[in-house]
Amino acid sequence: MGSFFPSSFAPLDPQSFSDESKAVIDFIEEYYRNIEKYPVQSRVQPGYLSEKLPDSAPYGPESLEDILKDVSESILPGLTHWQSPNFFAYFQANASTAGFLGEMLCSGLNVVGFNWISSPAATELESIVVDWMGKMLKLPSSFLFSGTGGGVLHGSTCEAVVCTLAAARDKALERLGGDENITKLVVYASGQTHFTVQKAAKLIGITKSNFRAITTSFSTKFAQSPENLRAAIEEDIKAGLVPLYLCGTVGTTSCGAVDPINELANIYREYKMWFHVDAAYAGSACTCPEFRPYLDGVELADSISLNPHKWFLTNMDCCCLWLKQPKFLVDSLSTDSEILRNSASESHSVLDYKDWQIALSRQFKALKLWIVIRKHGLTNLMYHIRSDVSMAKRFEHIKDTNPTQSLIAMVAKDHDFEIVVPRKFALVCFRMKPEIESKGTELNRELLNAVNSSGRAFMTHGVVGGTFYIRAAIGATLTEEHHVDDLWKLIKEKAQNLFLN
Amino acid sequence: MGSFFPSSFAPLDPQSFSDESKAVIDFIEEYYRNIEKYPVQSRVQPGYLSEKLPDSAPYGPESLEDILKDVSESILPGLTHWQSPNFFAYFQANASTAGFLGEMLCSGLNVVGFNWISSPAATELESIVVDWMGKMLKLPSSFLFSGTGGGVLHGSTCEAVVCTLAAARDKALERLGGDENITKLVVYASGQTHFTVQKAAKLIGITKSNFRAITTSFSTKFAQSPENLRAAIEEDIKAGLVPLYLCGTVGTTSCGAVDPINELANIYREYKMWFHVDAAYAGSACTCPEFRPYLDGVELADSISLNPHKWFLTNMDCCCLWLKQPKFLVDSLSTDSEILRNSASESHSVLDYKDWQIALSRQFKALKLWIVIRKHGLTNLMYHIRSDVSMAKRFEHIKDTNPTQSLIAMVAKDHDFEIVVPRKFALVCFRMKPEIESKGTELNRELLNAVNSSGRAFMTHGVVGGTFYIRAAIGATLTEEHHVDDLWKLIKEKAQNLFLN
Repeated sequence: MGSFFPSSFAPLDPQSFSDESKAVIDFIEEYYRNIEKYPVQSRVQPGYLSEKLPDSAPYGPESLEDILKDVSESILPGLTHWQSPNFFAYFQANASTAGFLGEMLCSGLNVVGFNWISSPAATELESIVVDWMGKMLKLPSSFLFSGTGGGVLHGSTCEAVVCTLAAARDKALERLGGDENITKLVVYASGQTHFTVQKAAKLIGITKSNFRAITTSFSTKFAQSPENLRAAIEEDIKAGLVPLYLCGTVGTTSCGAVDPINELANIYREYKMWFHVDAAYAGSACTCPEFRPYLDGVELADSISLNPHKWFLTNMDCCCLWLKQPKFLVDSLSTDSEILRNSASESHSVLDYKDWQIALSRQFKALKLWIVIRKHGLTNLMYHIRSDVSMAKRFEHIKDTNPTQSLIAMVAKDHDFEIVVPRKFALVCFRMKPEIESKGTELNRELLNAVNSSGRAFMTHGVVGGTFYIRAAIGATLTEEHHVDDLWKLIKEKAQNLFLN
Repeated sequence: MGSFFPSSFAPLDPQSFSDESKAVIDFIEEYYRNIEKYPVQSRVQPGYLSEKLPDSAPYGPESLEDILKDVSESILPGLTHWQSPNFFAYFQANASTAGFLGEMLCSGLNVVGFNWISSPAATELESIVVDWMGKMLKLPSSFLFSGTGGGVLHGSTCEAVVCTLAAARDKALERLGGDENITKLVVYASGQTHFTVQKAAKLIGITKSNFRAITTSFSTKFAQSPENLRAAIEEDIKAGLVPLYLCGTVGTTSCGAVDPINELANIYREYKMWFHVDAAYAGSACTCPEFRPYLDGVELADSISLNPHKWFLTNMDCCCLWLKQPKFLVDSLSTDSEILRNSASESHSVLDYKDWQIALSRQFKALKLWIVIRKHGLTNLMYHIRSDVSMAKRFEHIKDTNPTQSLIAMVAKDHDFEIVVPRKFALVCFRMKPEIESKGTELNRELLNAVNSSGRAFMTHGVVGGTFYIRAAIGATLTEEHHVDDLWKLIKEKAQNLFLN
């Protein structure tokens, strides 16, 4: 019988908790040490895992040793290694020791802070840490608890957009005097970032045809054009529709474009919309004074969000959302429940974060962000951003520092390559110049496939204004200069092969 | 300068990752060893933490030692200790070593599996493990990937309800031929569990007045009455409204009531609604054959969800959702994005979980549930459920096994106490019998406060049919028989004090 005998069952025994956790720490340490040995993008075929694992759960317990063996043999080959220093796809998801320590504490304490009373520290630390973040970003006090606003930690930008959209919708429907007006409400966002806002708008009941992805173009470096926006709004108003919500983006997903927040803010005020600033990726950079101007105008917005789980050394997941008038969020999302009634909430001296988000239950994510900030300090967090930007610059156009390595000329200096959208942060959008423009997509798609299938790096692509390009998102935690140099060498090597063929 | 010097900045150095992680493991181990020394419910006052922490982030890095000191001195006193064996409030949030190991691996690998290609193992393991869970629950194959349906891991029941509601809404609006019909759609759920479904319905744009919380009563042990439901539906249809979605609950939050799934299913079919079964709490118990009959009729439903993060030894957060026709979910939640386009998705040989949930980004939660299942095996998971139920029975009415301890007579045997709603799982709903019925609420509220403020246990309350009662939710991972006996002694002691006063 042995370990199958239930009376020995102690699923949270402190000693075995410690022993087994340390074995997993060793496993992860080893993974980080060897991470460059794996092909960055997984090479498995669809359905590979069902051939390796049983199709139903085991009846008896299995050992950690067996489980870790399966993780090594069956799971790791199926991973695309986001923590690899050679991962340049999508946007990076920065893990760090500090973020991991915070996750461990969050998971170990495993408290559920839906309201203040259910774990006061979870609510209070969250309020403190979102204020810390807000101050690091030099947000006006109208967004801070220490001022007249407040913030919350969500899991994703989509959740932040869903919640603020719902708040805006309910506020508008009240003003318009009837729920049947929901079909008149219109949501606007840059064509560059449409999918999150579009999904969120659909989710909260906005008619599909009432979502406007404002076309962007090379002429504005793919920033939302206030003129196009105004034209779309005017047309909607003429058609009897009601502008509801405008999302401005600082650092779009496809090419890192920055909407002119100041100018958009003036428009939204004119039309009484809700104005949300989505700084999911580039918001973290705005902790550095040299990038902060991109947020100018945020003081006019209703809400702003950014994801520390992208570029701010915070393991998944963590999204900061600040609001000028959290009241509207709470009006829209709060529900009464006898089972949650308590004197602290009724005294109105505390806040209950369940009314600031979609779900009732919530993790103690604040612990993670708090440890990330303290363990690095603003100085190292800024250093992290700046070193990634500097590597992106190097990749883009800094001149060859070693004349013997002729391959290192980098994108902008190489006559075979060109920058497609000017770089603002650490995302480089480039392509191989086609001899005939109509072959550009095919050529660059082939080049991207060749790079990715080498296993030595992983990038993704984008399309703006009809132009297909390759995205090198520089900023994985472990990426160093030599990885960026190697990426360039790899690209050149694969490009030469394509030319020769 | 020392550690402030940025060139030494290595936020994911494997060696310090390992050393510091192990220090945090030691910290958490120590926390579990001492967990009974803390008052279960935190005694801090609103605003306590802002007096202890600086109001802005540090400029330079701080040591782990300093941070852990602050966790001990400032955070732990502000926690309500959900992992304490004396935590009997709300529903338990079961941490376990296995769940923690899974969280560590998830956080350490830190992959973002929004689509198949972004980390195939994340998608494939999730599909496999939801099938494992489905088979453990003896769900019909129409809910399994190995059959004709499929499942996904969400973070919360609310998310599962939001997504299925949106799918139902979009399907209905298409049938009705116009978005303006959204104001006609009506959602039904038990008055026992209204808040999650009500919040979700409001979020997706259902008119507030079109939510029906079906009244329940002592006569049906607070199960939803098919007659009341049918009456409400008929009335709505007469008024020109359209029944959209019915939520049946197996194990309601307030008192653990079970809706008659079979009978509800017959009604929903008649009216062409979407039928969702919410088994957030009690679903885990249905892995034991003796509880499975509560799910009878689920084969007729459209979707079912349960939260392993409650009673299934899975650290926060994890909610399983199964659907008969995942297609409707995907139709409602998918969005195209050039940046995510890839040949695997376009071949339709894989599934992309981003289209099964609210957010784009997603963690590798499947790893956690997979390790929980393997490390315990079905046998120990059933043992866990059964031992909690057996402790609840003991608390409720098992006879005194030690005649010298006269205080141990337990609720149902004690002439001063009574069971308010018959127990089905491990939640005991009881109250002290008042001499005058009108004093019942006050008396039990005082008793509950006396117990909770002792710091020796934490319970919450409920109200059904106008009766205030105390909930003892038995099933924290560390709870053993003697904790339940101590809880009863504590209640008796506090009750005697109240009587004497």
